Amino acid sequence: MRLRLDIAYDGTAFRGWARQPHLRTVQGELEAAIERVLGGSAQLVVAGRTDAGVHASGQVAHLDLTDAQRDRLARGRSPEPGAQPVAFAARLNGVLGAYSDVTVRRTGIAPEGFDARFSAVWRRYAYRIADRRVGYDPLERFRTTFVPADLDADAMDAAARSLIGLHDFAAYCKPRPEATTIRTLLEFDWRRDASGVLVANVKADAFCHSMVRALVGACVAVGEGRLAVADAVGLREAGERTSAFKVLAARGLTLSEVGYPADDLLAQRAEQTRARRGEQPEDS
Amino acid sequence: MRLRLDIAYDGTAFRGWARQPHLRTVQGELEAAIERVLGGSAQLVVAGRTDAGVHASGQVAHLDLTDAQRDRLARGRSPEPGAQPVAFAARLNGVLGAYSDVTVRRTGIAPEGFDARFSAVWRRYAYRIADRRVGYDPLERFRTTFVPADLDADAMDAAARSLIGLHDFAAYCKPRPEATTIRTLLEFDWRRDASGVLVANVKADAFCHSMVRALVGACVAVGEGRLAVADAVGLREAGERTSAFKVLAARGLTLSEVGYPADDLLAQRAEQTRARRGEQPEDS
Repeated sequence: MRLRLDIAYDGTAFRGWARQPHLRTVQGELEAAIERVLGGSAQLVVAGRTDAGVHASGQVAHLDLTDAQRDRLARGRSPEPGAQPVAFAARLNGVLGAYSDVTVRRTGIAPEGFDARFSAVWRRYAYRIADRRVGYDPLERFRTTFVPADLDADAMDAAARSLIGLHDFAAYCKPRPEATTIRTLLEFDWRRDASGVLVANVKADAFCHSMVRALVGACVAVGEGRLAVADAVGLREAGERTSAFKVLAARGLTLSEVGYPADDLLAQRAEQTRARRGEQPEDS
Repeated sequence: MRLRLDIAYDGTAFRGWARQPHLRTVQGELEAAIERVLGGSAQLVVAGRTDAGVHASGQVAHLDLTDAQRDRLARGRSPEPGAQPVAFAARLNGVLGAYSDVTVRRTGIAPEGFDARFSAVWRRYAYRIADRRVGYDPLERFRTTFVPADLDADAMDAAARSLIGLHDFAAYCKPRPEATTIRTLLEFDWRRDASGVLVANVKADAFCHSMVRALVGACVAVGEGRLAVADAVGLREAGERTSAFKVLAARGLTLSEVGYPADDLLAQRAEQTRARRGEQPEDS
């Protein structure tokens, strides 16, 4: 049985998502809590492997249960019909502790063919910046980057929107030998929220490493007047990493949402994958 | 010369507003920063003396400068005309440090007759509650109280609104011998924000000690079904502290706004006060 988990965390005190020996990571904390509740060993597969300091309000992971874990999950359910997944999230949060910096928002049985990483068709991030015009809010300081300048939000928004589309984003990616830098940027815009904070909305099929923080860094250079709006595309077309803008800090970055196909399409895609691999459907 | 300071803080790591020896307080941190920038000794007078753990996004204080401090303030101003108060806030924030849990949002010369405490005609607080329906958000955990129940927001809103008006709020106040418990509750309502968090808006001419946290505690008892909507008024009319509801934790509470009369009325009120005291106007 495969479960889907919807997860939120304040990344400040974590060394990122991915489990590492002797370091506090989101994956490490969650797997330990799952093992405490269900016994056995737990291995989460996640939609977005966030870096150290990056937050999430809408992270998604999946988990395959052994028969023994499945039995323990069933024994823990509340008496109401269908209540079992809710009870599991509550039990995990009980182990994680009151006001923990990581929490499980929802758990449920994953639809046929669901894979938190490979089924995901898009990821959405938010990046929050307080500038000199608004001043930073102490109550939001752990999820907002402060830029000591008067930023031109309209210019930043124009630069952001100019980058949308299917392109090679090598200029905005930390190079990794095996990884493609060709991505479809689906949405990228800036607005000031009710309190004046600049919020970037960034959505793509997938992101290469440090891509969001590089994209918002280029927009900040535009907002400060150090780059022109047209430079955002110009740098992308040049195709090489540059010192014309900074890769911004992790503290302002939050993974807010992951998109998946509808359940019937998921099952169909899983079927096609099995067919390509020459496998039989599991229940045939 | 009197300055007005607009201040924000995350109360989590402070033992409240009021300066206390050997304890970290908001007043203590701010006065030390002012003394470092302007020399001499600084004494802030504040609109709302918040308790340990209570936050503020719109706290207001005033500060009287000596001639020597005034000279140092003037020497530190930026070259643009009228830029001096902005520069002072920036210098204070520089001393307080990047991403400090207290920040000075604005400073300016106070209008004639302004007193941060005695001129204030109303205070507004927000109280944030995450319940089981929404789950708490790790990124908001330092300014949100978690109540492990499914709260009935409509019932809470009805109970809150029923309490509005000029009344004796002794049942909702921590007793202090010298202090009146008769207050005008101007606004009190509950709504769920976009993320589902329950937010109370509470506005009164002034509050007695722990009054907001008692009022929201009574509403939570209504939201849980342990009290009826009508009990909110019934308890107030009984006029005594009760164990029928809890005084909620400081962590969900934020002082958001302080109201003052328009500048011309301030000057007029100050004039009347002087007349009652038989004093001469300062500049006569």
